[in-house]
Amino acid sequence: MSNEKIPYKIYLEEKDMPKQWYNVRADMKKKPAPLLNPATGKPCTAEELSHVFCNELVQQELNETDPYIAIPQEIQDFYKMFRPSPLIRAYFLEKKLGTPAKIYYKFEGNNTSGSHKLNSAIAQAYYAKKQGLKGVTTETGAGQWGTALSMACSYFDLDCQVYMVKVSYEQKPFRREVMRTYGANVTPSPSMTTEVGRKILAEFPETGGSLGCAISEAVEAATSQEGYRYVLGSVLSQVLLHQTVIGLECKTALDKYGEKPDIIIGCAGGGSNLGGLIAPFMGEKLRGEADYQIIAVEPASCPSLTRGTYAYDFCDTGKICPLQKMYTLGSGFMPSPNHAGGLRYHGMSAILSELYDQGLMEARSVEQTSVFEAAQQFARVEGILPAPESSHAIRVAIDEALKCKETGEEKTILFGLTGTGYFDMYAYAAYNDGKMGDYIPTDEEIAKSIANLPKIG
Amino acid sequence: MSNEKIPYKIYLEEKDMPKQWYNVRADMKKKPAPLLNPATGKPCTAEELSHVFCNELVQQELNETDPYIAIPQEIQDFYKMFRPSPLIRAYFLEKKLGTPAKIYYKFEGNNTSGSHKLNSAIAQAYYAKKQGLKGVTTETGAGQWGTALSMACSYFDLDCQVYMVKVSYEQKPFRREVMRTYGANVTPSPSMTTEVGRKILAEFPETGGSLGCAISEAVEAATSQEGYRYVLGSVLSQVLLHQTVIGLECKTALDKYGEKPDIIIGCAGGGSNLGGLIAPFMGEKLRGEADYQIIAVEPASCPSLTRGTYAYDFCDTGKICPLQKMYTLGSGFMPSPNHAGGLRYHGMSAILSELYDQGLMEARSVEQTSVFEAAQQFARVEGILPAPESSHAIRVAIDEALKCKETGEEKTILFGLTGTGYFDMYAYAAYNDGKMGDYIPTDEEIAKSIANLPKIG
Repeated sequence: MSNEKIPYKIYLEEKDMPKQWYNVRADMKKKPAPLLNPATGKPCTAEELSHVFCNELVQQELNETDPYIAIPQEIQDFYKMFRPSPLIRAYFLEKKLGTPAKIYYKFEGNNTSGSHKLNSAIAQAYYAKKQGLKGVTTETGAGQWGTALSMACSYFDLDCQVYMVKVSYEQKPFRREVMRTYGANVTPSPSMTTEVGRKILAEFPETGGSLGCAISEAVEAATSQEGYRYVLGSVLSQVLLHQTVIGLECKTALDKYGEKPDIIIGCAGGGSNLGGLIAPFMGEKLRGEADYQIIAVEPASCPSLTRGTYAYDFCDTGKICPLQKMYTLGSGFMPSPNHAGGLRYHGMSAILSELYDQGLMEARSVEQTSVFEAAQQFARVEGILPAPESSHAIRVAIDEALKCKETGEEKTILFGLTGTGYFDMYAYAAYNDGKMGDYIPTDEEIAKSIANLPKIG
Repeated sequence: MSNEKIPYKIYLEEKDMPKQWYNVRADMKKKPAPLLNPATGKPCTAEELSHVFCNELVQQELNETDPYIAIPQEIQDFYKMFRPSPLIRAYFLEKKLGTPAKIYYKFEGNNTSGSHKLNSAIAQAYYAKKQGLKGVTTETGAGQWGTALSMACSYFDLDCQVYMVKVSYEQKPFRREVMRTYGANVTPSPSMTTEVGRKILAEFPETGGSLGCAISEAVEAATSQEGYRYVLGSVLSQVLLHQTVIGLECKTALDKYGEKPDIIIGCAGGGSNLGGLIAPFMGEKLRGEADYQIIAVEPASCPSLTRGTYAYDFCDTGKICPLQKMYTLGSGFMPSPNHAGGLRYHGMSAILSELYDQGLMEARSVEQTSVFEAAQQFARVEGILPAPESSHAIRVAIDEALKCKETGEEKTILFGLTGTGYFDMYAYAAYNDGKMGDYIPTDEEIAKSIANLPKIG
C-alpha cells in the first residue's frame, strides 16, 4: 500500500486553485426554466430580484450564457484559508471492502463551518460588502449554513442576522455558540422581531418553528431594514456556481494523476454540493467530450428526485420567494424526522432538476439506518466522522464498490464528502443505541402534497 | 498578499513525512531523572513497568541513548490517514494585528479526535497489537485522548476500555458518542467495575469522579484482565517521542522555504504537544547548532512550571503509578474549574521539566479570559475555532507579535495549534455571555499542596 504512486491525500498547490467558477448552464442546450414572480406569473426581472438579493448575485442567478465567471481576488484569498480541500484516495476503505474499485472522495469538512457551505457564504458576503450593505439575513436549520455565513460576515465586518429554527436553536446550542463566537446575531424563529414571527407566535405560541417560517422572517428582516439583503445557502443557481470550486479542484487533481471517474456520487438536499461537485464533469458530458455515471443520493424520507414531480413550486413554505420549476414534493411536504437536516428539503436546484429530467444523471434514495451503518464503517477505517448528509453519498459509494467486488470491475468512484458530524452526535447516539428508525412516506402522502402545487407553468 | 512566495498552508509530500521519531533525551547531557518504584524508592526496571505497559513501549520509555527510533511501516501508513498536518502561515492574523512578525502554526486538529493525541494513540495501539494483547485501558477527562485511542484501537481491532471522569461523561455526551461510534467501551468513573471504583463509590456515592480516580480504575482494569495493558496520553517520555512527528514535519516544512523560527510556543499540560513540537529544534539547541526562544504556556489556574517545584511526585492522584521527578504542584493539587481540561494536570513531562530546569526553555502562565479573547480573535481571522488548550499558545503568540509591532522586529514565530474546540462550546458560551472568570491559586494553596510531596529524591 505504501508504494502506491497516488498519495492518500491529493492537495493542489495554491497556484492551481480555480480562478473562475464554471457556469454549467452555458453548456446546457435546454436551460433550466426561469424563476417566476408569484404575483404576475412572469419571469422575475433583475430589478425585482434585487430587492431581496445583492445586485451581482442577481446577475449570476440570471446568467445562462457565460461559461466562466471570474472569482474576485478577495474571494480567492479567503478560499486559501480553508482550500484547496483534499481529494482523498480511500485506500483504507478499499482494503476493508476488498473491492477492486478505486475510491476517491473530496472532503469539504476541514473548516470550522464543517461543510462546503463556506464556499458560497464568502462569495455572497463579498458581494454584499462590495455593494456597500450593512449586513445580510438568512435562516438556518441544522446550522452549517448559518455558521459558514457567520464566518464570512465576520471576515468582511458585515452584520449577520441568522434566524435559526427554534427547535434547532434549543437542541443545538453548540452550533448557536459557534455562530455567536463569530459575532452573528442568532434569533430563534419564530420570533417577536418580525411581523410574520409575531403573527405565527400569536397563533401557535408553543411552536418549535420551521425552515419555512425562518425563511419568511429572514426575508422580512432583509427587506424591512435599510442596507440589508437576504442570502440563501442552497437551491439557487448562484450557490451552485460558487460551489463549482469543489468539482474544479477535483478535476484538476484527478487529471494530474491521469485518473478519470466512472461514477460520481453526491448527496442532494437543495443541490449545492452535488451541483458543485459534478459541474465540470457534467460540462464535458454536455459537450460530448466524456461520459460519466452521475448519481444523486437523497433520503428515502424526503425523495424529491425519485418520487417527486417536475413542476413549478414555491421554494419556501411561506410562499414569499419566487416560483421555481424543479423536482418537488410540494412546499407543504413535511419530511419525517431525519437526522440529515440538510437534506430535508421538499424541492431541488433548478439546474439539477433539469439535468435529471434530461436523463443526464440518476437518483437513488436510501434509508437512514443503512446510511449510519455506512457512516460508522467509513469513520472506523478512514478516520473521519462524516455528517449524516454526506453519509448518503458514502452509502451508495460503498454499494457501488461492492458491486465491483462481485463483478471484478475496476471502476473509479468519486464521491463528495461534504462535511463532518461533530454536531450530529444525537443522531449517532440514536444509531449506537439501536434506537434509529426509518420512515418512507406513502404514495398517498406524496400525492396529497403534490396536489397542492401552484397552478402555473 | 496573493503574490507571496510562501503558501498559506504548507503540506509536505507523503514521501517527506518522518520515518523515525526523534528521541531528544539522546542529546541531553544531563538526562531526566529515572522513574522510581514507589514501593522500593529505586528506579523502575523494564520488568516492573511491563506489568502495566506494553513491552516495546517500556523500551522506548527507558531509552535515553538512541537519537532516532524507526516508525514501523504500519504506523507510517496510518499517519497518512490524517498527516502530514498543515503548517499554516497566519497571513490573516498578521494583517489583523498589523505586525511585522511572521507567524506560523502547526495545526494538528484536522482529524476526528480533534487533536494531536492520535499521533501517540496509534503507536501505542500498534505495539499492543504486536504484543498479541486483547485490548488496552485508559482514562480520559476532556475526551480527546479517549477518542484518539478509540480510533486507533478500532483500526487494529483491539478492545478499548475507557474510564471517563463521570462529570465529563455526563457533561460531554457527544465525546462519549464519538468513542462509542469507534467501538470503545466507555465507563463513567468511578464505577462498580473495579475494586477502587467500588471503594470510592461506597465512601462518596455522589462524587463526579476525578482524573486520578479514573487512572486508578484504568490501571486496575489493565492489570486484572488477561491480555490487557494500560496506556497514557501524555506525560510519559514514550508519548513525547511519538509526538515528535509534529516538530519533525514543522522543521522539514520550514527548511523547505528557508524559514527559521525565532520563537517557538506551545501549550503545556502534561507536555505531549509541546515536547513533540519543540523536539528537533531543542535537539539543535542542545547540540549547539542553533538557538531558539522556546516558551511553554500554562493556565494561571494550574501553573506547574511557573509556580511548582522540581521534585519527585506521583503522576496520579491515586498514587499507584511510578514516581517521576518533575515540576509539580503536588499530586493532591486541585486546579480550579478551567475550561482547558487538557491542561489541568498537577505535573509535567520529566523531559520538559529537566529542559526547563536547565534554562533551555521558558514558561508563562496566562489567564482564562485572556485566552478566550485570543481564541475568538484567532477564530475570526484564521477560520479555525481553536481548542481552549491550544488557545493558550495563541495568546502568547499574539502577545509576541504585538511586541514586534512595537519594536519593529520581524521575528518569525511558530506555535502549535493542537486542536479544535467543537466539543468545548460550553466554554465559549460562558465567554460569549461574559460569565467566564479567572482563578489564580494563592501562594498558600500551592505551598500546602507541595508540602505533601513524597519524601524521596
